[in-house]
Amino acid sequence: MEITRKDGSIINENRIIDAIKGLGIDMIHEANSGHPGIVLGAAPILYALYAHHLKFDPEYPDFINRDRFVMSCGHGSALLYSVLFMAGYDISLDDLKKFRQLDSITPGHPEYMVTPGVDVSTGPLGQGICNAVGMAIAEAYLNKYFDNKLINHYTYCLVSDGDLEEGISYEACSLAGTLKLNKLIVLYDSNNISLDGKTDLSFNENVAMRFISQGWNVITVTEGNSYELISKAIEEAKACNDKPTLIEVKTVLGDGSINANSNKVHGSPLSDDDIAQLKEKLNLRNIPFAVSQNCIDDFQYIIKERCGKVVSQFFKTMDNLDEEKLKDLELLMNNENIVNLKELVYDAPDGEKESPRDTSSKLLNSIVMSNPFMIGGSADLFASNKTYIKEGGDYSATNRLGRNIYFGVREHAMGAIINGLALSGFRTYASTFLAFSDYMRASIRMACMMNLPNTYIFTHDSISVGEDGPTHQPVEQLIGLRSMPNMDVFRPCDVNEVIGTYKAVFEKTSGPSSIILSRNKLPILENTKVNEVARGGYVVVDTLKKPQGIVISCGEELHQVIEASKRLRTKGIEIRVVSMPNLGRFLEQDKEYIDEVLPVEYRKIVVEAGSSYSWNKIIFNEKYLITMDSFGSSGKVEDVYKKYGFDAESLEEKIEELLK
Amino acid sequence: MEITRKDGSIINENRIIDAIKGLGIDMIHEANSGHPGIVLGAAPILYALYAHHLKFDPEYPDFINRDRFVMSCGHGSALLYSVLFMAGYDISLDDLKKFRQLDSITPGHPEYMVTPGVDVSTGPLGQGICNAVGMAIAEAYLNKYFDNKLINHYTYCLVSDGDLEEGISYEACSLAGTLKLNKLIVLYDSNNISLDGKTDLSFNENVAMRFISQGWNVITVTEGNSYELISKAIEEAKACNDKPTLIEVKTVLGDGSINANSNKVHGSPLSDDDIAQLKEKLNLRNIPFAVSQNCIDDFQYIIKERCGKVVSQFFKTMDNLDEEKLKDLELLMNNENIVNLKELVYDAPDGEKESPRDTSSKLLNSIVMSNPFMIGGSADLFASNKTYIKEGGDYSATNRLGRNIYFGVREHAMGAIINGLALSGFRTYASTFLAFSDYMRASIRMACMMNLPNTYIFTHDSISVGEDGPTHQPVEQLIGLRSMPNMDVFRPCDVNEVIGTYKAVFEKTSGPSSIILSRNKLPILENTKVNEVARGGYVVVDTLKKPQGIVISCGEELHQVIEASKRLRTKGIEIRVVSMPNLGRFLEQDKEYIDEVLPVEYRKIVVEAGSSYSWNKIIFNEKYLITMDSFGSSGKVEDVYKKYGFDAESLEEKIEELLK
Repeated sequence: MEITRKDGSIINENRIIDAIKGLGIDMIHEANSGHPGIVLGAAPILYALYAHHLKFDPEYPDFINRDRFVMSCGHGSALLYSVLFMAGYDISLDDLKKFRQLDSITPGHPEYMVTPGVDVSTGPLGQGICNAVGMAIAEAYLNKYFDNKLINHYTYCLVSDGDLEEGISYEACSLAGTLKLNKLIVLYDSNNISLDGKTDLSFNENVAMRFISQGWNVITVTEGNSYELISKAIEEAKACNDKPTLIEVKTVLGDGSINANSNKVHGSPLSDDDIAQLKEKLNLRNIPFAVSQNCIDDFQYIIKERCGKVVSQFFKTMDNLDEEKLKDLELLMNNENIVNLKELVYDAPDGEKESPRDTSSKLLNSIVMSNPFMIGGSADLFASNKTYIKEGGDYSATNRLGRNIYFGVREHAMGAIINGLALSGFRTYASTFLAFSDYMRASIRMACMMNLPNTYIFTHDSISVGEDGPTHQPVEQLIGLRSMPNMDVFRPCDVNEVIGTYKAVFEKTSGPSSIILSRNKLPILENTKVNEVARGGYVVVDTLKKPQGIVISCGEELHQVIEASKRLRTKGIEIRVVSMPNLGRFLEQDKEYIDEVLPVEYRKIVVEAGSSYSWNKIIFNEKYLITMDSFGSSGKVEDVYKKYGFDAESLEEKIEELLK
Repeated sequence: MEITRKDGSIINENRIIDAIKGLGIDMIHEANSGHPGIVLGAAPILYALYAHHLKFDPEYPDFINRDRFVMSCGHGSALLYSVLFMAGYDISLDDLKKFRQLDSITPGHPEYMVTPGVDVSTGPLGQGICNAVGMAIAEAYLNKYFDNKLINHYTYCLVSDGDLEEGISYEACSLAGTLKLNKLIVLYDSNNISLDGKTDLSFNENVAMRFISQGWNVITVTEGNSYELISKAIEEAKACNDKPTLIEVKTVLGDGSINANSNKVHGSPLSDDDIAQLKEKLNLRNIPFAVSQNCIDDFQYIIKERCGKVVSQFFKTMDNLDEEKLKDLELLMNNENIVNLKELVYDAPDGEKESPRDTSSKLLNSIVMSNPFMIGGSADLFASNKTYIKEGGDYSATNRLGRNIYFGVREHAMGAIINGLALSGFRTYASTFLAFSDYMRASIRMACMMNLPNTYIFTHDSISVGEDGPTHQPVEQLIGLRSMPNMDVFRPCDVNEVIGTYKAVFEKTSGPSSIILSRNKLPILENTKVNEVARGGYVVVDTLKKPQGIVISCGEELHQVIEASKRLRTKGIEIRVVSMPNLGRFLEQDKEYIDEVLPVEYRKIVVEAGSSYSWNKIIFNEKYLITMDSFGSSGKVEDVYKKYGFDAESLEEKIEELLK
């Protein structure tokens, strides 16, 4: 199928592809850093996609009904930027020249909110394809929510061998197959080379069969240099209406380089000689960044012919929306992530005990249903995490408006999928045991980096998990989360503080939060306060006269501390108890408040069944840290608490001794 | 095939299986905690294995040539303990009664070194099957090393749906297929139920096809209640000589319970009524722990008939070994993990710069080849991590003595596979970028818990990764590793300290270590000392007169600090510089040494491009922490260092100001 210009002349599309390659190679050469192999191997794939399929308008990079594109193999950034530049996004040739330079809009790996046309930060392999699964889930939801009239787009993703070796990719693809996400189309840059050489040393599985086993449609393009064949395959993929599609495109890594088809061309710039011979082969001038304006014009002409009206047509359709849906749409378009907290009303059980995870369940249920773009789920632990939305329905191939996503035992994919959902405007949550937050850490990090307003609901906090033993008892996970940039970590102790946590979390419109919850039934404490949680720490037990010391604690251990303080009082030892459900926030309070809660002149003790590293921020002297730097044990909660000295009796003794 | 007792009477093997079930159910009932579903569903699988295939002697649980069994679905612990007890391991009925009680030998999930017959700690799903892959790699190596005369065993593993949903299981199985580990036999307890209900909500892939796509032999047993059919399938699996085998056994979760085949029977004890009707069905007396001695005797008779001579035969074979191999074998059998450090000699390049990863490469090469049971590899980053053993050969289906394992881009499986290798007596190492240690965190945790002497070589330390940007720049990973119980974290700054690190790491015979290495070329510093590394911290720049302050640093930043100290000296500001390659070890030194290095009376500053949480252990006042609590940026190393204030110039200025 030939495309003609307005003057009737035929566009040579391969020239455009060569221009894309040339620019990508120049960028890497100029930066003296980058990955030329994928630029040369996968340029025809990206060209076929952007020229002939991707629905987008470079002038409106945030157009809500655009097709999404995720470059899961983020090391192909030079290729992506080259395409985005040529396609007409607000990226200049100068920007390309600053590839991989500090504070440029063309960083080493694609970064969300930095480059127009980049929908998500990628780089760590395997994350991107899972983000794409999240985006496809979002699209199916929105498509249905707006009665198939408004949101209707595809999600494309480019993956490398490396992406498909990562376990997270199998997890997400298994779920995508189960959910029949037919508008997800994954292009696989299949070249059998990874950084360490031929993949047959470590990766000789039959990828097509693998995807078929996971319920996917698979198409193979054996000539990866033919944008026409790739385009035809994408056409076919779009026609499949009950399965996601993998298009395996057989490419040659570093095609045209003297080191083509070897790992030498993967991660280091091409030599000057290599560039010279390559450009001669491609019929390009060997002048850095000398790109043909004709090629740029032709590319943009092709795109404009196909996509020129998509935005205006969308706005026309919008006009037909009823008022309520229009308001919802605006919420999404402004990406405001505002959660309606009106429904966050909850009468605590009077005098009764309640497990923090049960309180959380009630609160989550109360807000999810009143906010159309809240969605989440559990990694096969709904029953334990108590995050099931009773009136939400199950998200499935036949119920695209379900609010409960059964992620399966796939913590890592869950983390990356909610990132994709958040990038599509959803307010998301995910849940598992705190000990298993380790499985999803790499995806949580990406959320922190993009500052997405995800909420992680981690139940089965502390060694008080009991019988399940050390593998299931978190110890170092608290410091692990607290030390992640941008992560807001809450560890509430009772009903009041769980309510306060929910308020603090959902009042925010950006940034990830972790809610750490005990599984055990705990009493409602007398002086815990909903509205103090946002400040991170506050006094829950005070003394009439000067206290003999201050004990700081949070979560389940706070209950033991309060019990210990009561016992101590009978002995005439008066201590102040400070609840600190959010250490990070407390540290950010002004000095006056901190001094008021923790006056310098008193001795202070911290009690937490977690790593001591968290608490040196409050107390320097290790002697006063009743914390835990070993793994736990299997046993009844009370026995385990006693063994490690976190029961009221042991605490009473220890505190008394420390305050002597 | 019927088995007769010595008196000629026929053994009813199903009675033994029922006895195993009864005990497992009683244990869970007594503990009021546990997972009955798998006990009732998978008992015939474990029975078939232990009675008719597993080569073992309960009197010698550590017998080196035993078949290995890994219960990947560790929540089936009650089933395992019940089988081990009945099989004759040193476990009493009283031990079973203490199931899940504090400090019993029957903890909630199987724990290494706690229960005889338990080869590895399991619980977090997916880990176990990867440990089994590691054990199978180890067996193939040892089999070849001892000329197929001595070590020759199978590795069996029981997995649940949950294990197979975890990404890590796909990773390891893909590698197992590539490596053609035919003596690995995985039994799949296939019941289509997980904690959240039917797996069809999240997991409807074709598991058989998936394993075939990964190069496995697949056998299906449709009647999971028939130990005979299961046994036949295992026989078939053993006959396959070029592929690992998956035996999918279709079972009924909680078979016999009134809640059979539903998630209700997965994770909560059966009710009294349910137990009553179950025991009646199984023809068992409804008295807790009333197990038939006949069944025990029959089970042990069957095992003894089959395995009674395996240990004595092995010792006979051992007698024929030549002296050198005998010494090697003893090393393995004593599980001493002693590394021959004689070869750890390395002349530092005089006056030249060297990247810590290159120094590490030389050292690693020098010791691996002189220690027959050292093995390791990289997650597709040999070229970057510099962990390739030049004379080691590549581990593959055709070279079982290769020392270089190409793990592929599979950090998580790499972590769990080396755990399996370590459990088989190997001294192991694994390598990737420090930023991607997050991907393997859950498997590192297991190594810490089992105190395995794994060495993690994490290169591309710090924001000095440069161009690759924030996704590739570690920040919070250092505190993440330092806060893991039992983990020994080294962050050396130059050739001398890398040598010191290797000495300290390989002098140990247990416990995991992380070696954090910059990728950049760095000079050899004047006063760094090989032998001081083991103490964690020491003075590298001192002053003649009293210093105006002390600056503590490590890794690449130390070089900038020393440069800054030189500049400050020209201004008359004299500072002491302390190198602290191992914070954890320094904190364990005696008070005198700590006071000598860091006298109380001086002001102290810490410089590290990592989370501040690490360093409050040394300095309370945040003002004096020049650390990093945000993500980094893409750019040239010097630009990135400058942006975040870690270049010599910025440090000079900052330190001067702080010491004013």
